[in-house]
Amino acid sequence: MPERKPLHLNAFLMSVGHHEAAWRLPQSPASGGTDLDHYTNLARIAERGKLDSLFLADSPVLQGDPGRRPVSKLEPTVLLTALAGATSRIGLIATASTSYNEPYNLARRFASLDHVSGGRAGWNIVTTAGADAARNFGLDDTPQHHARYLRAAEFVEVATKLWDTWADDAVLADKESGVFASAERVRAIRHQGTYFRVDGPLNVRRSPQGYPLLVQAGSSEDGKEFAARYAEAVFTAQQTLEEGIAFYKDVKQRAEALGRNPEGIKILPGIVPVIGETEAEARELDAELDRLIVPEYAKRQLAERLRIAPEDLHLDEELPEDIPTEDEIEGAKSRYTLVVELARRERLTVRELIGRLGGGRGHRTFAGTAEQVADTIEHWYDSGAADGFNIMPAVLPSGLEVFVDRVVPILQERGLFRTEYEGSTLREHYGLPRPANRLFEDVDRSEGHLGIGLAAAT
Amino acid sequence: MPERKPLHLNAFLMSVGHHEAAWRLPQSPASGGTDLDHYTNLARIAERGKLDSLFLADSPVLQGDPGRRPVSKLEPTVLLTALAGATSRIGLIATASTSYNEPYNLARRFASLDHVSGGRAGWNIVTTAGADAARNFGLDDTPQHHARYLRAAEFVEVATKLWDTWADDAVLADKESGVFASAERVRAIRHQGTYFRVDGPLNVRRSPQGYPLLVQAGSSEDGKEFAARYAEAVFTAQQTLEEGIAFYKDVKQRAEALGRNPEGIKILPGIVPVIGETEAEARELDAELDRLIVPEYAKRQLAERLRIAPEDLHLDEELPEDIPTEDEIEGAKSRYTLVVELARRERLTVRELIGRLGGGRGHRTFAGTAEQVADTIEHWYDSGAADGFNIMPAVLPSGLEVFVDRVVPILQERGLFRTEYEGSTLREHYGLPRPANRLFEDVDRSEGHLGIGLAAAT
Repeated sequence: MPERKPLHLNAFLMSVGHHEAAWRLPQSPASGGTDLDHYTNLARIAERGKLDSLFLADSPVLQGDPGRRPVSKLEPTVLLTALAGATSRIGLIATASTSYNEPYNLARRFASLDHVSGGRAGWNIVTTAGADAARNFGLDDTPQHHARYLRAAEFVEVATKLWDTWADDAVLADKESGVFASAERVRAIRHQGTYFRVDGPLNVRRSPQGYPLLVQAGSSEDGKEFAARYAEAVFTAQQTLEEGIAFYKDVKQRAEALGRNPEGIKILPGIVPVIGETEAEARELDAELDRLIVPEYAKRQLAERLRIAPEDLHLDEELPEDIPTEDEIEGAKSRYTLVVELARRERLTVRELIGRLGGGRGHRTFAGTAEQVADTIEHWYDSGAADGFNIMPAVLPSGLEVFVDRVVPILQERGLFRTEYEGSTLREHYGLPRPANRLFEDVDRSEGHLGIGLAAAT
Repeated sequence: MPERKPLHLNAFLMSVGHHEAAWRLPQSPASGGTDLDHYTNLARIAERGKLDSLFLADSPVLQGDPGRRPVSKLEPTVLLTALAGATSRIGLIATASTSYNEPYNLARRFASLDHVSGGRAGWNIVTTAGADAARNFGLDDTPQHHARYLRAAEFVEVATKLWDTWADDAVLADKESGVFASAERVRAIRHQGTYFRVDGPLNVRRSPQGYPLLVQAGSSEDGKEFAARYAEAVFTAQQTLEEGIAFYKDVKQRAEALGRNPEGIKILPGIVPVIGETEAEARELDAELDRLIVPEYAKRQLAERLRIAPEDLHLDEELPEDIPTEDEIEGAKSRYTLVVELARRERLTVRELIGRLGGGRGHRTFAGTAEQVADTIEHWYDSGAADGFNIMPAVLPSGLEVFVDRVVPILQERGLFRTEYEGSTLREHYGLPRPANRLFEDVDRSEGHLGIGLAAAT
């Protein structure tokens, strides 16, 4: 067998599972979303499996109907800080919004998480769609899609500059002379931009990783451009191998066109593995979960996502022809398109579509044996559709347990996945370098690890 | 000995100690401010001493000259979350600014900290003075003092309403029928105020304490009015017993005038205990620390605080007559006045004043034996100047260790301090009730535990 680069696997944690009805199973803890013991258990299982990271989604709004789903959750930077203490090697990736945070505050929190975890922090950069979230922050509606991405880009510029305000060698701690830090090695940034004016310096010295791994998840045009410029890992939702290959190639080429090494940006599609002793058992498990979905409620949610009236959806018919195009909506554009394309391609009825969405919210559900799950992961990897996967178990902890105990050993045997952590930081798990300090080091921009500008930093 | 109510003691943690030169001592860890192991050690010492809480100050800005002091620090909500996992009973009070945060974000983080710590969270509400901080958030200068307090009041109204958006009994988790939460027991707030418009509900269910203990530290007129209305604990800086008694009486009377039970607001002055085997040894320890201060640097800092030119200060003379009054400054008014009054009352030279400020930044330094420290604590407590104290060791961990091992046992022997934690939440340590839910319960406003309005909640 030829030597292959190892692939990357993240545990995408979602209270008691990614399937919206998972909480109704007898074994699911009722308060999973706010129960630290439940998450600690998940974190330890994932670390036992040598996974690259724990990943938490987020939006600063109550998402979904509390009548129907366990929507109460812990804030990700708090939860991952708590999990840092219960683990020692696994990475910790928290989602946080650039639309509803201030760069100085967020930069401090991620730098602090990177310090307390010994270099295991990652930031999944999102722009946060939806009027509901906007109305928690003094706005009537979500800012326009493109404007959100402009703000996100400036936000990342400011945050990365703040993380560089202390040179790695700034602290001298010279007790004899009373000099704590070298005055020349701590700098303000005096950023003056369209969205932000921030003086700095940060009040946290440079952290073990320099700064957290930068992750991004949008798949719209704006999203892909942003990813190509800034992201070190991209979480994506791809339903078919062909789509996966096209997306992979697209983003890597965009990164290359910006002067980046395409190896410096990892593409990680989501997969919802439903694992049984036999394929039939796995399919039955999947069907059992779908039967627990309350269809009228799910139909209402789907109608909301499609920006149409619930009365226009009929459970046993296909989607109506007349629905808005991606251009006409201001929300999570790429997720919207994936849903519509999935329904059209497979000619799903609304009821079938609801089942597919209930399982993975647009991500790919794969029901089969452990061997079959390993096969599909290997196949996508070898076909150039993925550098790894976001593992999104339908039910937690059981779905993570069976993945770690049954699928991971197969991948390890095939030489596709690590059997021990080799590094101690998240960047090391991903095989990515610690970023140079742009404010203090002589950075060769032609090699440009990230597409972050230097103009405003002086 | 008559039965006395126990007093309350918090460990106010400040990297390697409150004395600005503490880091220069041979035993001080150079990277104390960002070293989790150092803080974990402090937290365990404080919990061994059965102290009420760990307390962390904060400002979203690099405070002080990094050339001279260990100003790199971890963000308090992150650090206290990490310490929650290393402890089991002690309270966790984080400072956070109402001027540079959004209520929805902050309410989530504190609710999450309260969940992961099992009800040990406290929020020290500050309005954040200073142009330096303002310039990290798109402003040219700090907002006007009174306006900061108006925003703070509205912020607390919004946050406390958000914490009440889930009734305690909202989650049914009825797996049979598929009803997660009772739709009538989760509510939006649709707050529309001067500074904030926030719809809610929060995406975190109500936490063990209902919401974090509300703490406040200002001593200006605005600060005292704010404390009387909202605070459950007040951290204050009082140099003399007479001032302490006057402040105590003032705040309790203001609270009573607002219809609150004065027992519901605990007054906790700061004290910097410098402890020796003999009084002479303690004084020598104190003097040794003062000798480590770099006087020219400290003079520059003092001039900045007084809004005068450094050239107008002379180390071996008293403060000049002609300095601004409290009304003329927009900063931390009450701290400013305390400094000036201390200098005038004791006719200190600038050099002497610098020594006093270097030790406790305006708080009262007390050098003596363990017995003498216990005596002064008891005396202030019996005289009606304090319900307890913020313990601010000049050097950490040694100053906390000696306080816990030598002073606490004396206070316990005198029946003044607990020998075991009786409750498990921070509110229980302070003998304060869990707040009723104003959005769902029939709250008798005449008894008004807190001066928080209901008008905007409907």
